[in-house]
Amino acid sequence: MWADLAPIGRDKSTGGYRRYAWTAADADCRAWFRAQAQARGLSYELDRNGNQWAWQGDPLAGDAVVIGSHLDSVPDGGAFDGPLGVVSSFAALDELRRRGAEFTRPVAVTNFGDEEGARFGLACVGSRLAAGQLTAAKAYELRDGDGTSLPQAMEAAGYDPAAIGPDPERLARIGAFVELHVEQGRALDLSGDPVGIASAIWPHGRWRYDFRGEANHAGTTRLVDRRDPMLTYAETVLAARAQAQLTGAVATFGKISVEPNGVNAIPSLVRGWLDSRAADQDTLDAVIAGIETAARDAAGRSGIDLTVVRESFTPVVEFEHALRDELARLLGGEGAPPVPVLGTGAGHDAGILSAAVPTAMLFVRNPTGVSHSPAEYAAEDDCVAGVRALADVTEGLACA
Amino acid sequence: MWADLAPIGRDKSTGGYRRYAWTAADADCRAWFRAQAQARGLSYELDRNGNQWAWQGDPLAGDAVVIGSHLDSVPDGGAFDGPLGVVSSFAALDELRRRGAEFTRPVAVTNFGDEEGARFGLACVGSRLAAGQLTAAKAYELRDGDGTSLPQAMEAAGYDPAAIGPDPERLARIGAFVELHVEQGRALDLSGDPVGIASAIWPHGRWRYDFRGEANHAGTTRLVDRRDPMLTYAETVLAARAQAQLTGAVATFGKISVEPNGVNAIPSLVRGWLDSRAADQDTLDAVIAGIETAARDAAGRSGIDLTVVRESFTPVVEFEHALRDELARLLGGEGAPPVPVLGTGAGHDAGILSAAVPTAMLFVRNPTGVSHSPAEYAAEDDCVAGVRALADVTEGLACA
Repeated sequence: MWADLAPIGRDKSTGGYRRYAWTAADADCRAWFRAQAQARGLSYELDRNGNQWAWQGDPLAGDAVVIGSHLDSVPDGGAFDGPLGVVSSFAALDELRRRGAEFTRPVAVTNFGDEEGARFGLACVGSRLAAGQLTAAKAYELRDGDGTSLPQAMEAAGYDPAAIGPDPERLARIGAFVELHVEQGRALDLSGDPVGIASAIWPHGRWRYDFRGEANHAGTTRLVDRRDPMLTYAETVLAARAQAQLTGAVATFGKISVEPNGVNAIPSLVRGWLDSRAADQDTLDAVIAGIETAARDAAGRSGIDLTVVRESFTPVVEFEHALRDELARLLGGEGAPPVPVLGTGAGHDAGILSAAVPTAMLFVRNPTGVSHSPAEYAAEDDCVAGVRALADVTEGLACA
Repeated sequence: MWADLAPIGRDKSTGGYRRYAWTAADADCRAWFRAQAQARGLSYELDRNGNQWAWQGDPLAGDAVVIGSHLDSVPDGGAFDGPLGVVSSFAALDELRRRGAEFTRPVAVTNFGDEEGARFGLACVGSRLAAGQLTAAKAYELRDGDGTSLPQAMEAAGYDPAAIGPDPERLARIGAFVELHVEQGRALDLSGDPVGIASAIWPHGRWRYDFRGEANHAGTTRLVDRRDPMLTYAETVLAARAQAQLTGAVATFGKISVEPNGVNAIPSLVRGWLDSRAADQDTLDAVIAGIETAARDAAGRSGIDLTVVRESFTPVVEFEHALRDELARLLGGEGAPPVPVLGTGAGHDAGILSAAVPTAMLFVRNPTGVSHSPAEYAAEDDCVAGVRALADVTEGLACA
């Protein structure tokens, strides 16, 4: 399976993947998914929101066990984030057939559309639409960096944007959703386990900091006459790291936009995006408040106008305890060591769906913790362990 | 004159000018120049490098007095930087005709092409080519942000790129070049003078700092596992300001490029451009060394790879003392207060030409010192004083 998928959307210069929603690379990934479904005699469905489903058994029977993830990528992402979950789901189904498992519930493999939000800036669009967490009206307003709107992009890819929206009937068919994902940190590497179970997704959000100063000539303006927002931005970047260190949270300025962005021009505007996440809401509130206070102090000292806008926010997601405990029982039984249960700072379709459906996640060890990068990695043995765990879980949930 | 020129290339949202080389706005500025020349019965010339000339008297007679500046702009630039010098030159010629001056030397008004380098990243392309400080081969390699090369842009604008290159015969006609320019600092405002004479252009350069770390997920990567180049960039921005403050120089990071520049991605690369200038070479060397040392220290502490490339450098330009003293005599005679003589941190076509031709500059007071911004300003009285000074100088040099 990997051999067909590996070259799709790969940039030759960086080795990273550029599989953005509704692009040619995305279409190739979708064709791959459909071919995998057909090769296994699974019934293929494309839902109104561009999510793909491959069914074993009757899709309408209800109480289905659904396994899967996504195939799209961040800019220059790695090979595993998303695809490992989809490939492992098909492989787990193959494993169960080899075991001669007798299915008592329908099982589906899924590929959720536009999980990373690389093109339109909002993550988990496919699952958000289905779960009613994103309205069609709001989705129609999404635009990519070239100004192409989401409905234009869907039409160009041959999909009907008029159909998007909440899909409660489809979600009502699902009795349990289990998403397998490469770990995006080093917790399993540090604990020495190939596979873990998710406890919760940390609360997280994005804040846009607009530092406005005064454009001026970098060669002729005396330092005392400057209102240079780049200096205040720099102070804020360092304050964010300090606040995160104090509290055990993470806080990152990874995206910036500068006007006029000229070598010989003091900027008029430096716009920086803060991503911050913490294990609980109180800690996150404290970090965010600390960073904003530091930024406002620095801005006040330098005559910089600062506005802070919260662009998105997701509260803590606790995965359903009953399903989580069931997974732990299925994977840790008969004297085997208990499977570690860990939180994560990353958002997932599973986090979105957990509001509507009993949901759980499995993580596969990532020896370097590197993620969203071509260096992202999981060892073959650990991938096999992940498939076995997913097969065990699916067998325990869906088979006699 | 201003009424026809003012709307060209003006962005409605910012109020700033976007007159970049070989664009439609540039063509409109050039048409304006030609119309001004024709309206005064001046003979119009376009040279091989896209510089415009309007001649009173015989261009081939030699020992000409040339006055002028440029019409192009930085992104969202002001109305005065460049155009004030060209408009004032035509106005000075009008003033001399009103005075009934008898010309003993030919006089030309010029508009040098692509002074700001806003499109192709290199300043003073027109004068550099003419003076042989930029070869045609190097100029052919210049590309704008869309990948369009300089020769392609020239062709698209109806000019012949094959003709560009050194133009010593044309420069040999010039006996003196005087460029009037709005001041880009507050020295005249602080001294209370409407007009000043340039002593020198500070040595200045541009350095590109490439901070390379490791792309990773901003939500899941522990702080201790990060190699985040944005932090090292921030430390370097603050170090640059501190070094400048220590030495009386200026040092600015005004342009940045980040990869992958995603909200939830620790950057793999932060590229920042440093512009630095100082009154003398030793001071500039000390500032640059201090900034690089601080950046390397910070990079070493954080596992960041740093490369520093000097992208351009211009040594100090001392304007010809004889011409400078002549201007001071012409403007400060008969009991009038002496005209202040001041250095500047900004590069100009006059700085380029000074290697080949006796060259001087006049500055007009800028009450806020703001430059390269729509807020750039000169009071009408001061503009009139500038025209009178330029007329006085031209009369003193070129008339009986």
